[in-house]
Amino acid sequence: MNLRVALIGTGAVGRGVLSVLSSKNLGIILTGVADSRSGQINPDGIRIPDLLHQKENTGLCGDPSISADRVVNEAPYDILVEVSPTDAESGEPATGYIRKALDRGCHVVTSNKGPIALKYHELECQARERGVALRFEATVAGAIPIIHMLQDSLGGNEVQALYGVLNGTCNYILTRMAEEGLSYKQALDEARSLGYAETDPTYDVRGTDAAIKLVILANTIWKTGIRLRDIHVTGIDLLTEEAIRLAEEQDATIRLIGEIVPSKNIYRVSPLIIPRVHPLTVKGSLNAVILRTDLAGDLFFSGKGAGSLETASAVIGDIISIRERYAGGY
Amino acid sequence: MNLRVALIGTGAVGRGVLSVLSSKNLGIILTGVADSRSGQINPDGIRIPDLLHQKENTGLCGDPSISADRVVNEAPYDILVEVSPTDAESGEPATGYIRKALDRGCHVVTSNKGPIALKYHELECQARERGVALRFEATVAGAIPIIHMLQDSLGGNEVQALYGVLNGTCNYILTRMAEEGLSYKQALDEARSLGYAETDPTYDVRGTDAAIKLVILANTIWKTGIRLRDIHVTGIDLLTEEAIRLAEEQDATIRLIGEIVPSKNIYRVSPLIIPRVHPLTVKGSLNAVILRTDLAGDLFFSGKGAGSLETASAVIGDIISIRERYAGGY
Repeated sequence: MNLRVALIGTGAVGRGVLSVLSSKNLGIILTGVADSRSGQINPDGIRIPDLLHQKENTGLCGDPSISADRVVNEAPYDILVEVSPTDAESGEPATGYIRKALDRGCHVVTSNKGPIALKYHELECQARERGVALRFEATVAGAIPIIHMLQDSLGGNEVQALYGVLNGTCNYILTRMAEEGLSYKQALDEARSLGYAETDPTYDVRGTDAAIKLVILANTIWKTGIRLRDIHVTGIDLLTEEAIRLAEEQDATIRLIGEIVPSKNIYRVSPLIIPRVHPLTVKGSLNAVILRTDLAGDLFFSGKGAGSLETASAVIGDIISIRERYAGGY
Repeated sequence: MNLRVALIGTGAVGRGVLSVLSSKNLGIILTGVADSRSGQINPDGIRIPDLLHQKENTGLCGDPSISADRVVNEAPYDILVEVSPTDAESGEPATGYIRKALDRGCHVVTSNKGPIALKYHELECQARERGVALRFEATVAGAIPIIHMLQDSLGGNEVQALYGVLNGTCNYILTRMAEEGLSYKQALDEARSLGYAETDPTYDVRGTDAAIKLVILANTIWKTGIRLRDIHVTGIDLLTEEAIRLAEEQDATIRLIGEIVPSKNIYRVSPLIIPRVHPLTVKGSLNAVILRTDLAGDLFFSGKGAGSLETASAVIGDIISIRERYAGGY
């Protein structure tokens, strides 16, 4: 039997997921889809090429009379895939969708940082009570399966510290400032023109995005219950060319590093001077993570931090791991 | 209820596993243990500190009249942990132990490359028929959870190529030749004196160990059915200081790289000249892997390739992932 998913959100991540579902035969059918203005439900499976065509031509993924709420409440699905844009302050409407899906006894996969950063404990309890899974690999470090690794693969290890380059936009800007001697503003403009930075880049360059990822890691892995305001955050928006040049003269460079060291109560995002040969000196929009563990020692991971297919990879990995774990029904 | 494991093998890996089990409260009890000359069975759980003490003082882990066979056949366990030394030619006696445990309907976790390189398909079929798990994270890349990643986390991705530094002994020797201008023989002697190389280093330096790891990856991930003789292997034992010096003069170095590119039928282990800034230029006894995937793009991982606790980390991770997946009984 096919696994049935409903998809909320048809932005870059949603379209990546749709493109993978339509190009690979994964035994998954799409029974519902919604964007902020329209939706459709089809228990027999929506034809994805038609859907993508419609979205491209009309900007809508379905019928304006069918809301995302209705898709969440009424479509028949095994897994709700919630990939609507992050609202880091309220976490809504995504949190409501996720609650409702869990309430229906369905699994949830999300790339949405808001609900996980703000309401993880409550949502995880609800999922556990209903015997379903809540997975969120795509919220942190893009294509690097860091959550899987921390939750599943390193069982038995105490993860004593995590250091990471978790924001590709900042990393791109810092890379260009160092390599080409660009000013912060020049590098930011370039990142914008290449689509690596939003029109309003505040959320990235002030370190908020990286800090939200630390909140997610701290609460899901270390169960700390910290909030965004508990993270000590310094962005890269005040960095001068001079600072970068001085670092480079010493065979070093500057990266925006997120740090979690629970035993020392360190939860921090800040630009740090690190040697150019340091593993966290990754280039461009890459992400990178170092885990310090008691048994496995230091582990290092890097990969693409964003991108439609890369984020879809994390979403699809979550979907498939749910199928493998709860095999039988589908 | 506690999870019951029986352990076959009390070398470096086995002692690492025992040390983790005795120092961490993982809800796991040891109901059987055997080395090549003795064994013991205790359904209530063997006291591990006493066991380690006895092993250290007498060289035996139990009663000489109790064989490993008997522990495998008679001890009450949920998971057999098979960490006896690798015999890469016959795969025995480990393969027999694993077959017997699966036959009893028990899960198996092994660090033993022989059975997985030689008999994976048969053993995996047997495990599937019995509805139990066969896991072998510790056979490849030490503490890096590369098998978990390939089997579980990257679901939906096609892994198009794998490139890896998979033998810490060779990597240590090459690192020292480059950094200190040592000859191959000097570096090998140093590696021996530090315990990074065996008295007979042939298996490592001729590339056999790395090639066996490629066989394991090729057969478990890509289901190729290849054998050791299908891998094109060149070792590092004929490398001269001159070759390394020439590479270094061009800001490059030499590493023993294993490559799997199934679409091009490439299964190869050989010393390659790579730029010094290449991610696979890891130092000392580290291992490193690059995965080229269709969705997640390139992913890079590095970590310790060997060591008692590092390998135990992989074994314990497998044990815990089995418990999580087959939760209920224990």
